[in-house]
Amino acid sequence: MLDFTYYTPTKVYFGKDRHKQVGDIIKEYGYKTIMMQYGKGSIKANGLYDDVMQSLKANGIEVIEMGGVEPNPKVSFVRKAVQLAKEKKVEMILAVGGGSVLDSSKATAAGALADCDVWDFPSRKATPQNALPIGCILTHSAAGSEMSSSAVLTNTELNMKRGYNSEFNRCKFAICNPELTFSVSPYQTACGIVDSMAHTMERYFTLCPPTDLTDRLSESILQALIAAGRTLMQNPEDYEARATVMWASSLSHNDLTGCGRENFLAVHQLEHALSGEYDHVAHGAGLAVLFPAWARYMYKENPARFAQFARRVWNVTEADDEKAALAGIVCMENFFKEIGMPLTIREFGIEKSAMDTLAEACTFGRTRTVKSYIEMDYEVIKDIFNNCY
Amino acid sequence: MLDFTYYTPTKVYFGKDRHKQVGDIIKEYGYKTIMMQYGKGSIKANGLYDDVMQSLKANGIEVIEMGGVEPNPKVSFVRKAVQLAKEKKVEMILAVGGGSVLDSSKATAAGALADCDVWDFPSRKATPQNALPIGCILTHSAAGSEMSSSAVLTNTELNMKRGYNSEFNRCKFAICNPELTFSVSPYQTACGIVDSMAHTMERYFTLCPPTDLTDRLSESILQALIAAGRTLMQNPEDYEARATVMWASSLSHNDLTGCGRENFLAVHQLEHALSGEYDHVAHGAGLAVLFPAWARYMYKENPARFAQFARRVWNVTEADDEKAALAGIVCMENFFKEIGMPLTIREFGIEKSAMDTLAEACTFGRTRTVKSYIEMDYEVIKDIFNNCY
Repeated sequence: MLDFTYYTPTKVYFGKDRHKQVGDIIKEYGYKTIMMQYGKGSIKANGLYDDVMQSLKANGIEVIEMGGVEPNPKVSFVRKAVQLAKEKKVEMILAVGGGSVLDSSKATAAGALADCDVWDFPSRKATPQNALPIGCILTHSAAGSEMSSSAVLTNTELNMKRGYNSEFNRCKFAICNPELTFSVSPYQTACGIVDSMAHTMERYFTLCPPTDLTDRLSESILQALIAAGRTLMQNPEDYEARATVMWASSLSHNDLTGCGRENFLAVHQLEHALSGEYDHVAHGAGLAVLFPAWARYMYKENPARFAQFARRVWNVTEADDEKAALAGIVCMENFFKEIGMPLTIREFGIEKSAMDTLAEACTFGRTRTVKSYIEMDYEVIKDIFNNCY
Repeated sequence: MLDFTYYTPTKVYFGKDRHKQVGDIIKEYGYKTIMMQYGKGSIKANGLYDDVMQSLKANGIEVIEMGGVEPNPKVSFVRKAVQLAKEKKVEMILAVGGGSVLDSSKATAAGALADCDVWDFPSRKATPQNALPIGCILTHSAAGSEMSSSAVLTNTELNMKRGYNSEFNRCKFAICNPELTFSVSPYQTACGIVDSMAHTMERYFTLCPPTDLTDRLSESILQALIAAGRTLMQNPEDYEARATVMWASSLSHNDLTGCGRENFLAVHQLEHALSGEYDHVAHGAGLAVLFPAWARYMYKENPARFAQFARRVWNVTEADDEKAALAGIVCMENFFKEIGMPLTIREFGIEKSAMDTLAEACTFGRTRTVKSYIEMDYEVIKDIFNNCY
């Protein structure tokens, strides 16, 4: 087990109707003027907006609204939000939505207390030194952003999607009501499941000393996600399955599954190039295509690890490690297919010639490699993109 | 899954040599005068005391010492510590030790900012409204107090051992270096493993809706503890096993294993009567004796649950639930025996006639029942004590 620091200060309010307490929770912290960010208006259609506003107003909280956060949240939107937050002297940011709204809110929270441009954070020109407190009401189980230290932004001018980590990205509180995800489409539900699985698997597939406990916790989360995913494809309103997927998405990315291990998030780097370049590609769908291709490229670097994954997560009984490893990858791929995910980049309607461009984007114009079992350079990454075309 | 609130704000610094950073960590928080509590001096014999003092002094931190915390920490000691903390205006409490030192420190931290007597907290006459911040350097993996909201005190005048929960009992930081537990005796190591297992099993064996994810996480922690426990009985200086047991002890009692479930800690109530009455009984050893007896009394109330435990944790293959349940209890008992735990109360040198007194103590003189699959009254509790005599 490698040395680690574990810090998950987010207070999670989990369960039915808990979003109706949001005003009371914020009042207890003492914030009087908040900015509320949300997406394209689905929260207005399903009544969530009204519930939230009612609770906030009942507690005398002034709300500055910033609706319209897009999937793959845009730095241009965040810049506007930062300006407004500064003008209105908001004391906290409330994100009502999924990972995109959360990440937009996180960048706004740090930007509001910084002098630099918010794109300086993902581009590593600046590090957040402070941030407004962030709270959220989660409406989609996927990114795990509600408990994570990550935020991912897209810069459409530069055609880049990049993430950054900071302890200032941690939410102060997260309200997680599984019922709010009942209406998430099967496709987006599946994307979320893949994203959560990927957060756990990325940390699972790294080279480091043994971590028996972290391994078992990770395998547990994956098994629970797989079982709940199958249930949800049959019955989208199964509360227990929605709750499992929601809690698993938080635990997959709050660092629990990385304790004592190296954390590369290699496949995420590849996927950020893909959905950064092609806005219509959902992050989870991109991961579903890339993870098996990456695994097939890598499993020979550590067959025993991939075999453990196959046996413990997918109940593969094959004794030979290499064969078991491959069987496990097939199981993963079949599961992604079963829940309606694409298996190839071609299915996104992208030309094969674009694989070079994606490898260029992923390596920032061949200026970096991506760490995994091997250092993945432009050629390796291009091969992986081509292998899953 | 029942609704739950999950809040584990303790920052965990886990790994080799990390205790040597304690002064830097405290300085970063800005505390200048601290009280350091520790036990009977083993930290002086093994060099830990010197390491800690060196780091604190190097950072200009003034240290008020309160050594001599006893196992089953005494309210009389805490009262003295509270008085001293108030006199010296200490800004935080640093616990260097195991669960007893931690719990003594927690009660001191709350007592230092309260007007009431500290025994008012466990006796439910008062609730902590505030507390000094607490940090710890852990030297024993057992109580999970480093991340938990619990503290347990013993009142020798009243012959009572009682716990209480409060969010003010959460440590601000916990420094967890598995090497500091290399010198813990096999017996105390085993006691710690049983205590951690019990913290997970207590939450596992409650009646509530399905919690697939929490179940699997709990089963993972138990499996990891069992494997690491076996390793440590052969090689007490196996770093990976010590690390597994240390991290598992924290996760067993930081509420992760209780998410979405009812939390009774029924067997702990029985054990507190036992070690509260007999100071020479180690808490873990008491649990090792009582847990199988409690399980044999209860399994028919929920055979499917006990069968799941048997199959997933102990690899029992029996198809019949009741038979599997019993086989799992036998496995648990055999494991406790394998790591050197007693199996009967008789082995503590206690007279059989004392079982009545223990049941009296556990029910506060027949004035309360203890919640479990059934409400356990005086008669039930006496039966359980007698069954494991």
